[in-house]
Amino acid sequence: MLDFVKKAKWDAWSSLGSLSKDNARQKYVDLVSSLVSSESSSQVKDTTPDSKHGYETLQVTTTDNITKIMLNRPEKKNAITTQMYREIIQALEEAAKDDSVITVITGNGDYYCSGNDLNNFTNIPSGGIEKMAKDGAVLLENFVKHFIDFPKPLIAVVNGPAVGISVTLLGLFDIVYATDRATFHTPFSELGQSPEGCSSYMFPKIMGLSKANEMLLFNKKLTAGEAYAQGLVTEVFPDWTFEKEVWIRLKAYANLPKNSLALSKQLIRGVEKEKLHAVNCQECELLRERWLSDECMNAIMSFFGKKSKL
Amino acid sequence: MLDFVKKAKWDAWSSLGSLSKDNARQKYVDLVSSLVSSESSSQVKDTTPDSKHGYETLQVTTTDNITKIMLNRPEKKNAITTQMYREIIQALEEAAKDDSVITVITGNGDYYCSGNDLNNFTNIPSGGIEKMAKDGAVLLENFVKHFIDFPKPLIAVVNGPAVGISVTLLGLFDIVYATDRATFHTPFSELGQSPEGCSSYMFPKIMGLSKANEMLLFNKKLTAGEAYAQGLVTEVFPDWTFEKEVWIRLKAYANLPKNSLALSKQLIRGVEKEKLHAVNCQECELLRERWLSDECMNAIMSFFGKKSKL
Amino acid sequence: MLDFVKKAKWDAWSSLGSLSKDNARQKYVDLVSSLVSSESSSQVKDTTPDSKHGYETLQVTTTDNITKIMLNRPEKKNAITTQMYREIIQALEEAAKDDSVITVITGNGDYYCSGNDLNNFTNIPSGGIEKMAKDGAVLLENFVKHFIDFPKPLIAVVNGPAVGISVTLLGLFDIVYATDRATFHTPFSELGQSPEGCSSYMFPKIMGLSKANEMLLFNKKLTAGEAYAQGLVTEVFPDWTFEKEVWIRLKAYANLPKNSLALSKQLIRGVEKEKLHAVNCQECELLRERWLSDECMNAIMSFFGKKSKL
Repeated sequence: MLDFVKKAKWDAWSSLGSLSKDNARQKYVDLVSSLVSSESSSQVKDTTPDSKHGYETLQVTTTDNITKIMLNRPEKKNAITTQMYREIIQALEEAAKDDSVITVITGNGDYYCSGNDLNNFTNIPSGGIEKMAKDGAVLLENFVKHFIDFPKPLIAVVNGPAVGISVTLLGLFDIVYATDRATFHTPFSELGQSPEGCSSYMFPKIMGLSKANEMLLFNKKLTAGEAYAQGLVTEVFPDWTFEKEVWIRLKAYANLPKNSLALSKQLIRGVEKEKLHAVNCQECELLRERWLSDECMNAIMSFFGKKSKL
Repeated sequence: MLDFVKKAKWDAWSSLGSLSKDNARQKYVDLVSSLVSSESSSQVKDTTPDSKHGYETLQVTTTDNITKIMLNRPEKKNAITTQMYREIIQALEEAAKDDSVITVITGNGDYYCSGNDLNNFTNIPSGGIEKMAKDGAVLLENFVKHFIDFPKPLIAVVNGPAVGISVTLLGLFDIVYATDRATFHTPFSELGQSPEGCSSYMFPKIMGLSKANEMLLFNKKLTAGEAYAQGLVTEVFPDWTFEKEVWIRLKAYANLPKNSLALSKQLIRGVEKEKLHAVNCQECELLRERWLSDECMNAIMSFFGKKSKL
Repeated sequence: MLDFVKKAKWDAWSSLGSLSKDNARQKYVDLVSSLVSSESSSQVKDTTPDSKHGYETLQVTTTDNITKIMLNRPEKKNAITTQMYREIIQALEEAAKDDSVITVITGNGDYYCSGNDLNNFTNIPSGGIEKMAKDGAVLLENFVKHFIDFPKPLIAVVNGPAVGISVTLLGLFDIVYATDRATFHTPFSELGQSPEGCSSYMFPKIMGLSKANEMLLFNKKLTAGEAYAQGLVTEVFPDWTFEKEVWIRLKAYANLPKNSLALSKQLIRGVEKEKLHAVNCQECELLRERWLSDECMNAIMSFFGKKSKL
């Protein structure tokens, strides 16, 4: 099941043996640089969408006063590539301005979203790994900023397992509906990384400090029922009636007075908007440093190693 | 069951047909102005209470170190008129200074409180609808301010269903005891309005953002059990022993050291007092705008229309 | 079961009869001063620990990347004396700098900790009761400060009942594991005192205002299950497998990337660190005043009276 490039990555990395802490970064750069050039032909094209609905990684529709943004890389469990980050930003900007009353984000296929596509870490630009980390942090901060500032009710329809950034962002949604098949996992410390999506502020606020730490520090994966008990999920539905029940609910919501909803949402968000922007900035700053750490690079290399063994 | 004035209101409003968005405000003013003058004789007298216990809409007593403020318009489900807002302010000012250890708010009859009396919106002063909205916002801000600043433990004894402002204010009480017959409903967006009573800040803090939004944006009515699970209610009691059990508890509380209780309460409140005053101000400012919006005026006219059909 | 000094205390205090509020402070000073001098020979020695592991009231060990700080006065239910406050401060400073990944606080014997040792209030220095209150507040503020600033994951292993400051501090731990035999009790108002350990801020944040007030104002004692339901405890274990299950969990945590854990913890704490320091300062300031109040002195004298009757 491994394609040629993945096999090559694994062979190259495994040949490194146990890395000395001192030269992990240089070895990481050399390795990834060589690999990336060899697989450039097989990469997804980074084309710019040429129309409102010209998305490559999303499917965006507006019906019954509801704009629906569906992550659309089901074969990759909707992992978020650099391109998908940019398309979601664009889709949110358009949804903010259109006539819809509420906006929904969901995933196509079995997964809601498997989080940041770790292949993003293999796109090392000419500026080197520092440039990659800096660009990544700038993009992430802008991405999260669009969730903080989104001016209408924003609803997550979590159709399956959610990982990483797709979980942490849930604290910025106004309503979160989940199938009972969904799970919620933020394995940051395992990957030598740190929390984002304003979760370092919102999760303790939503579920209390110690429950937040179980997830954000110690990688606890929550079931849908546990996420509901902790207040991260608003309501859980049986999988076989999930879509039907949720969309009946959403259509009812979309018939409420539009301005009243938007202004009330903005009132509630306004109380902590400044704080959220500051938290977002700090989280991205720490992540930029983390991405350059030995702990993180070793963890990512180990990830690709394990994956290639499957 | 309809009195003459209500019938006249309905006939007049129903004759408006579907309102053009452009002239909703003018029609609202014309209509309400004419109606109010015709029913002035049947209105409750706006007399000033002439003694400490000279309240018309409340019953206020002090026994066993407990000052009890009982909303006393059971025939109107304890809906809060402009006069009742003023009397509650006065009762809180007196309770703050008296010798009692704790202060209790409860309702007379089947309801705890059905919220803001929508008839308040028909008292259009000579300054027009803008003046009505401004006066309403000033009164509301002052009303909520007295709950934020109240210096002793303040306890809600929720003896039945609670609606609107009587629900949102619960976030400013120190303890909330409810009968299992109580429900909690804040249908702001249905009425084209927005949250008050510091609920835009306290509800997300108490129950997490998404649970707060179910109530404040999407009008979800909570049972007593749900309100307990969300932390809005401290404890629920069976209706048939509610009063007996609660008052035994309250009398025990009222025997604790008075200053220790008051200073500890002020310590806890002090952490967020400045924030609460800012939130109160923003909420009232938004409501003032909302009250002048077409969404709100249409919703209120529709309310009186539905009511007159019953 | 009463030793000579306790009997003498009781006889002296009981002879005071019901105290006039006006002279409670002077009588308190006279009484305690005379008693303290008479029992100085039986007091625990206030020796300075002479080595890293030279603690008298604690047992501190580091194994498997975990530094464990065990309160070690089981015969006194691990009540915290002035000396123990100082030793915990020192142990936290050393744990912050050592090579361990996580730090654990637990208790030896049946109790986790019975809170502040009320005998601390009988050590009246030459500066009088005002000096005692001031010194106590300075020590407490510095003690709590070390919990706010602790730079690694800090985990409470609550092996039995917890009282007072040992409960309020739990809001500053990253994870709290408890045996099902544990209880959580903060009887501040009964003792004429007020909340500390940043609980006036963290408890409302963790469990909602009204649940926090049940504990902090009205002395409600929580079972382990209730503390879990309120988010104060992360997980409850059956007593007979408690130690085994918890330490398996902790050893797994201690194998995660050290820097990632520490920096993520600091990120989460950083969001509210400034606020916590301000709250700590206000709480200690109020307590200093409370310790000089008649309510508090009468309550402490009553405590020793009841104790001596047992």
